[in-house]
Amino acid sequence: PVATGPVKLAVIPGDGIGQEVTAEALKVLEVASPAGVTFEQTRYDLGAERYLATGEVLPDTVLSEIREHDAILLGAVGGKPNDPSIPPGLLERGLLLRLRFELDHYVNLRPSRIFPGVTSPLSREVLGDDEVDFVVVREGTEGPYTGNGGALRVGTPAEVATEVSVNTAYGVERVVRDAFARAERRPRKKLTLVHKTNVLVHAGSVWWRLTQAVAAEHPDVTVDYMHIDAAMIHMTTNPQRFDVVVTDNLFGDIITDLAGAISGGIGLAASGNINPDRTTPSMFEPVHGSAPDIAGQQVADPTAAILSTALLLDHLGHPEAAARIEDAVLADLAERGTARRRTAEVGDSVAKRVAG
Amino acid sequence: PVATGPVKLAVIPGDGIGQEVTAEALKVLEVASPAGVTFEQTRYDLGAERYLATGEVLPDTVLSEIREHDAILLGAVGGKPNDPSIPPGLLERGLLLRLRFELDHYVNLRPSRIFPGVTSPLSREVLGDDEVDFVVVREGTEGPYTGNGGALRVGTPAEVATEVSVNTAYGVERVVRDAFARAERRPRKKLTLVHKTNVLVHAGSVWWRLTQAVAAEHPDVTVDYMHIDAAMIHMTTNPQRFDVVVTDNLFGDIITDLAGAISGGIGLAASGNINPDRTTPSMFEPVHGSAPDIAGQQVADPTAAILSTALLLDHLGHPEAAARIEDAVLADLAERGTARRRTAEVGDSVAKRVAG
Ligand SMILES: CC(C)[C@H](C(=O)O)[C@@H](O)C(=O)O
Ligand SMILES: CC(C)[C@H](C(=O)O)[C@@H](O)C(=O)O
Repeated sequence: PVATGPVKLAVIPGDGIGQEVTAEALKVLEVASPAGVTFEQTRYDLGAERYLATGEVLPDTVLSEIREHDAILLGAVGGKPNDPSIPPGLLERGLLLRLRFELDHYVNLRPSRIFPGVTSPLSREVLGDDEVDFVVVREGTEGPYTGNGGALRVGTPAEVATEVSVNTAYGVERVVRDAFARAERRPRKKLTLVHKTNVLVHAGSVWWRLTQAVAAEHPDVTVDYMHIDAAMIHMTTNPQRFDVVVTDNLFGDIITDLAGAISGGIGLAASGNINPDRTTPSMFEPVHGSAPDIAGQQVADPTAAILSTALLLDHLGHPEAAARIEDAVLADLAERGTARRRTAEVGDSVAKRVAG
Repeated sequence: PVATGPVKLAVIPGDGIGQEVTAEALKVLEVASPAGVTFEQTRYDLGAERYLATGEVLPDTVLSEIREHDAILLGAVGGKPNDPSIPPGLLERGLLLRLRFELDHYVNLRPSRIFPGVTSPLSREVLGDDEVDFVVVREGTEGPYTGNGGALRVGTPAEVATEVSVNTAYGVERVVRDAFARAERRPRKKLTLVHKTNVLVHAGSVWWRLTQAVAAEHPDVTVDYMHIDAAMIHMTTNPQRFDVVVTDNLFGDIITDLAGAISGGIGLAASGNINPDRTTPSMFEPVHGSAPDIAGQQVADPTAAILSTALLLDHLGHPEAAARIEDAVLADLAERGTARRRTAEVGDSVAKRVAG
C-alpha cells in the first residue's frame, strides 16, 4: 500500500537533543516527499519535561489521538541521568515501550551499514573491502519485555524476583515471516536466527521450529543459526557475514547497540517500530538517547533521525524517496569526514542534496 | 585457605580439542605448582563421546566422586555441530550447567586482558596506550539459567513458551560481595554493575539495591552502572574503562564472549566456575568449545586452558604460582607474534618459562 495525499504524522520530539535532531529530520522529510505527498504534522510534547511539569507520561487521550495518525516520528526521550524526580525506567516503560506494545510494533527494524568515511572502532583488518550492510529484525512485543514477573519479600534477605520471557507461536511466526520477506528483497538473501536455544530451551524451541517452518517456504533464502554469545564474536570479527538477523526483543536490544557501535556509533543508527499489518501507525526514531549534556548546543548529529525518515518513507510505500535520503546521507558523510558540523548544517546539507 | 600437600584434581578433558589443550594445561600446572603441592589426578571421560558410547551424560555416581575432589579442570565438551544423535543443549545443560549448579559455582570468573602482541579486532585508535585489563564476575547459579519456565500447546499455532529468570537476594548478594572483594584487591578499585534495570525492573531492582548496599561497606571502591546494551558500546569503544564487572548469568554469558573477542579471541579466554565458600570443588575451563573440526591436529591454541590453571592455583591460595603462569603466557604471546605453533609447542614453551 502506498500512502498518497496528506499523511497524518504525529511528531514527538521529546527531550534533550530529541528536539534539535527532529527539526532536521523534518526538514529532510519535507524535501524528500514524493510529488502529491504532504505531511500534516501534529506535535506531541511527551517525555521527561512533560512528566516533570505535569506528572503525565502518556495520557490515554493522547494515545488515542496518536493512534489516528499514519505514522509517528520520535526524537528521543529521557531526563538528566539519575534525576531523582524521575523514577528509573518510568519514561522507557510508560512511553517508549507502551507505544510499542499498544501499537503492536512487532517488527523493530534496525539497519546497520558502515558508511564510507565513517570511523568504526573495528580495525582495518577486520573491515577489509567487503561491505557491512545488514538489518536486524528485532521482535518488539514479547520476550522479556512484557513486564511479566514480580517480586516477593522485597528488601528482605529472602527476596525473590522473577522476570518472565513470554514467547508465542503467534508472535514469533509473524516477525520471522517479516524477516524472511525482507531477506527475499535483499541481494544476498541470507537470514540468521540469533537466540540461546541451548539454555533457553522452551523459547529457543519455538523460535527454532518456526524459523525452520517458514524457511521451508523460502528455499532461496540461506538460513543459519547463532547463539547470542557467539554472535558477539562474529559481529566484531566478521560483520560482513550478516544480512538479515532475526531475534527476540532482548537479544535484539543488545545486538543492535553492538551493531550501532561497530557501524560508527549510535549517532548514525536509525530504527523503525513497525506494525507491518498497518492497523496502527508505525514509529520511527533514532536509536540514541536524549543526551541532555549536549542538548540545545547544535552539536548533536541528526543523521540517525534523518535516516529514520527514510525508514518512514519506505514503510509508507515510497522506497525511491527513502533511497534518495540514504544516498544524500552517504554523500554527506563522505564529504564531512571527521569535520564536526552543527546540527542544522547537517540537516541543511542533506536536505539540499535530496532536493537535487 | 591455602591448599598444601596432595591436591585432588578431577580432570575432564572432554571432546575434540579439549583433550589436547588439557594435556598442555596439565604440563604447565605440574611445573608451576609450589613446593610441597602435588596434584593427584583422576580422569573422568565425560562429554559427547561418552554420551554417544553409553547414553550417559553425568551419572550421579560420577558426580558424587567429583564432589570429593579439591578442584576440577575441564577442557571442552561438545560433539560435531548439529549431530542428530545428540539432542541440542543436552551436554550443555546435562553436564556443564549441571556441574555449575550442583556444585554451587556462583562466581563465574572471566578475566580479560589484551596481551601485548595479540591481535584485537579493535582499531589502534580505540586501543590507544592504556591497558585493557578487567574481570567479569558473572553470576553462575540463577537468572535465566535456572531451567524455570515451560511451554503449552507445543507445535500448535497457540503455543506459549516462557523462560523465567529467577533472582534472589541470597544469590545476588553473595556474588556482589565477591565482586567487591575482587575490586578491593585491584589497583583501580572500580566496579561496574551491568543489567537492564529500566526494563527488567524486578530483577534489576534487587541487583541495584544490593550493589548499593554492599557499596556502602566499600567506600574506596568506585561504583557505576551500565545497561547491557550500553555496555556493548563501551566495550567496543573504550574497554579500558572496565575494571571489575558484575552481572547476571545471561548478561555475563554475552558480555564475556564480547570481551573474549576484543581481547584477541576466545582462544585466549580462561574462566573459573568458583564456589568461594570452598564447600565444593571449583571448576576451571577455557571459554572456547571443543572445535571438532580442528581436533587431534595439534593446531588448537592451549593458552586459554593454560590460563585456566592460573585461576585454579590462585583459587587454591597460590597467587604467586598463578602470576608465574600469566607472566610466562604473556612472554610467550609476545614472542610468538603471529607465528602459528603446534599445541604442544605452546605448552612446552610456557612450561619452560614457568620452570625457569
Ligand atoms: C530505552 C529502552 C527501553 C529501549 C529498549 O530496551 O528497547 C532502548 O534501549 C532501545 O533499544 O530502543
Ligand atoms: C555452553 C553454554 C551453556 C555456556 C553458557 O551459556 O554459560 C557457554 O556459553 C559459556 O559461556 O560457558
